[in-house]
Amino acid sequence: CNVEFYPSFLDSIHFSPVLLSKAVMSSSSSSALEMEIFQYIDDHQSDFIKDLKEWVAVESDSVQPHLRKEVMRMMVLAADRLAALGATVNSVNLGSHQLPDGRVLPLPSVILGELGKDPQNPTVCFYGHVDVQPAKKEDGWNTDPYTLTEIDGNLYGRGATDNKGPVLAWINAVETFRALKLAMPVNFKFVIEGMEEAGSLGLEKLLEEENQSFFSDVDYIVISDNLWLSNKKPALTYGSRGNACFFVEVECGSKDLHSGTFGGIIHEPLLDLIALLDSLVDSTGCIQIPGIYDGVAALTEEERKLYGSIEFDLEEHRNNCGVKKFLYGTKEEILLHLWRYPSLSIHGIEGAFHEPGIKTVIPAKVIGKFSIRQVPHMDLSVVKQQVAEHLEGVFSKRKSPNTLKVSMPLGAKPWLAGVNDLLYKAARRAIKTVFGEDPDFIRDGSTIPVARMFQTITQKSVMMLPIGAADDGEHSQNEKISRYNYIEGTKLFAAFFLEISKLHRNSHETSHTETIN
Amino acid sequence: CNVEFYPSFLDSIHFSPVLLSKAVMSSSSSSALEMEIFQYIDDHQSDFIKDLKEWVAVESDSVQPHLRKEVMRMMVLAADRLAALGATVNSVNLGSHQLPDGRVLPLPSVILGELGKDPQNPTVCFYGHVDVQPAKKEDGWNTDPYTLTEIDGNLYGRGATDNKGPVLAWINAVETFRALKLAMPVNFKFVIEGMEEAGSLGLEKLLEEENQSFFSDVDYIVISDNLWLSNKKPALTYGSRGNACFFVEVECGSKDLHSGTFGGIIHEPLLDLIALLDSLVDSTGCIQIPGIYDGVAALTEEERKLYGSIEFDLEEHRNNCGVKKFLYGTKEEILLHLWRYPSLSIHGIEGAFHEPGIKTVIPAKVIGKFSIRQVPHMDLSVVKQQVAEHLEGVFSKRKSPNTLKVSMPLGAKPWLAGVNDLLYKAARRAIKTVFGEDPDFIRDGSTIPVARMFQTITQKSVMMLPIGAADDGEHSQNEKISRYNYIEGTKLFAAFFLEISKLHRNSHETSHTETIN
Repeated sequence: CNVEFYPSFLDSIHFSPVLLSKAVMSSSSSSALEMEIFQYIDDHQSDFIKDLKEWVAVESDSVQPHLRKEVMRMMVLAADRLAALGATVNSVNLGSHQLPDGRVLPLPSVILGELGKDPQNPTVCFYGHVDVQPAKKEDGWNTDPYTLTEIDGNLYGRGATDNKGPVLAWINAVETFRALKLAMPVNFKFVIEGMEEAGSLGLEKLLEEENQSFFSDVDYIVISDNLWLSNKKPALTYGSRGNACFFVEVECGSKDLHSGTFGGIIHEPLLDLIALLDSLVDSTGCIQIPGIYDGVAALTEEERKLYGSIEFDLEEHRNNCGVKKFLYGTKEEILLHLWRYPSLSIHGIEGAFHEPGIKTVIPAKVIGKFSIRQVPHMDLSVVKQQVAEHLEGVFSKRKSPNTLKVSMPLGAKPWLAGVNDLLYKAARRAIKTVFGEDPDFIRDGSTIPVARMFQTITQKSVMMLPIGAADDGEHSQNEKISRYNYIEGTKLFAAFFLEISKLHRNSHETSHTETIN
Repeated sequence: CNVEFYPSFLDSIHFSPVLLSKAVMSSSSSSALEMEIFQYIDDHQSDFIKDLKEWVAVESDSVQPHLRKEVMRMMVLAADRLAALGATVNSVNLGSHQLPDGRVLPLPSVILGELGKDPQNPTVCFYGHVDVQPAKKEDGWNTDPYTLTEIDGNLYGRGATDNKGPVLAWINAVETFRALKLAMPVNFKFVIEGMEEAGSLGLEKLLEEENQSFFSDVDYIVISDNLWLSNKKPALTYGSRGNACFFVEVECGSKDLHSGTFGGIIHEPLLDLIALLDSLVDSTGCIQIPGIYDGVAALTEEERKLYGSIEFDLEEHRNNCGVKKFLYGTKEEILLHLWRYPSLSIHGIEGAFHEPGIKTVIPAKVIGKFSIRQVPHMDLSVVKQQVAEHLEGVFSKRKSPNTLKVSMPLGAKPWLAGVNDLLYKAARRAIKTVFGEDPDFIRDGSTIPVARMFQTITQKSVMMLPIGAADDGEHSQNEKISRYNYIEGTKLFAAFFLEISKLHRNSHETSHTETIN
């Protein structure tokens, strides 16, 4: 399946590099105001790291049900932090949700915060999450995942980069203006949630409900929940893949069996499941589900050229992940397959023996878990149907008496932004000021469903402004953010406040002048 | 692969049903002595169940390294119990062993016990184990696995039937003779270990070392570590399959990866592993490893006929395990495939995501675990080589840059006994006395490597005398032994002591008489 040979079709909101280069006029020299702000941030590094240590210490894992109370505790900490900033804080109760096993769990509240109401200022809404992926020391961490530990300039801990570090960097950037008694250049709004790693349950409904109230005066939405493409060079992100998660359950009965007493005479559910999982992707990475590539937007020659100009070190990326070889040999192929083509990954199996050692068991009920990172313009409901039909077809050929269930417990859509918005220009200038270079304009292979959700519901301009480096290891063992990225990221946010304020006022004055002329 | 069509070959030590029926002369009526013993056992049911409750309460799981100290504690309890019986107890230190991850763990001692030295008596050595398979309430147990709980006449708890219940039944049968101040009909020896579920590490070496000393005066060896074929009808077991356990490890690097950041551009180790596991067995249960059936002893017409006479309720067996349908439709096919043909079961995967919920991870190192129940005359080293070559062949076709490692951490041989031994005659009589019917002569699809080990090393007659019912669920959730089987099993052992004593003395007198004549 050579996914590049589809009829030509260009995404309508794809950006033009020509427009971008004309639009950006800022110099890389810092103003006196910026110098004062940056000095304050440098002087308060220890305080900012202490804040992060306190947040990382909370095991706010939203994936595992028994840790839900820790997520709740984390939400209280975050609300207190915003209140200390002087913000008005509203913790919105979202009710509860049901787990696949039938249990009902309370959802953490979503924090809606507001600070400043100057009508001259643009209103920037920041979204972040303070829940984390599961992590245990024995998964292979060198340090305790819930004790932020600095080694060689890196701050190790679960949530350090995804997403507690960036949330605190934003808060501390705001705090800096307050501490220096500076006029706030923008009005701030905050949306902080605790269910992002579990699919942002309840958030979409809340955004819809708040669209005419909380969001009515918001001009721009900023999310900082992804990483740069390189370890050193900053980036701005204008798109992300979606994620359709699937559970495939095969069951032969209610109890596990002994492989000596039943091995050789029954259709083992795990054998069925392994055959099903083995039918999904071939050894070249091509998804084998019939029709799955039909909805993928075709790549035009113009779009392909954009990929050539991105600075991306294949070797560095390979070193970051530790594999010996990628499926593709060129930078362009790698980026295309990460950003604008779908992929299918198998994550694991629930219900089978998974511990060290030997257990001669035939598991009675096993649940395979995989996900498809889907891209524009794949339709989630079509994908779901294609997957179910494919698996049912493979299963029926096995003539197994076992029970098959296919479900899609989570379906997040892809996202694509307009990169000529003021938001992107302001961020580009701020990056130039703090880091001395232009950012890469990139997409993200990961799913950030909130970006798509915010854009679709609020119709505001949404930008993703990452501060973590490519080797931060989000979702992995030894997740970290470097002290450099955390502190310079705080400066970047502060500089961005000034830039968006300036560009926003200019654009409004220009509109006004034009109206008079 | 129709495994029944191999050149004709009959196992040399296969039993003849004609010989058996001639040899057994006992009636089913109980003697006064037996009545007295059975009455005592009935009167002390509560004490015997209390003993079992105390033993089940120890989480003596030998599979999971962190529970090794509980195994050690269990060995002390067992040694104390034998000492209280009046036995001489020797706890033999076996040193330590290395885990696959490099850690070194101490091995539990093996208990060698002795009680009685009457030269007129036969010496019967009983083997049992007091370690258990892993069990957690959340695996699907209705009761706490380590709190023996009686519901509707069944005693639920991990180890209740495998093997703590039978070990205590034997001890309590001996205790009964002591309590009633009866002459001991046999001299007792005990071999009690704590590593059976982890492959009886160190036991083989100990047996070899003790062969000329501890075992020199042993006449018979009895093991009670398996189940009846039916829920109601007693059985005697004369053979068991072996077990060759395999680990298949595929690794791409040292850390898990995010499926958004790397999905679509790397050769995922779990995809490789699933393809490898999927190559092992087809949907009809036939093992796909080339040459694997070459060593299987061929089935003769004479042998096939033996299977026809066994009382075995297919429907009951199906209900016990809860599956909708077996791979085969007749009793003979089912028993042949359980007892004298190899099977391959996949147990699970270590290193992948296995918890409830979703984790969008690409695991960096995954270990597939499967085992082959092999039969006479398959050669373990040949099987190991066939498996490794097959997997390496499948893997090389995938052109994956990942690392593959195949190992066989455990290889237990099959076992086949001589069923015309006095041992089997005595047990058959005892069963008739206690249960009022003849037993089924069966093999066991499970591996009991100690049976093979004891026979090979000591060259003594070895018998397996189960007291648990087919639906006891060893290795499964809700493992149990019924109160009936536990108590009648205790009587069976006591009756067996009397029968083997009588038959042994008779056979020795006969030999003497023959010499005189």
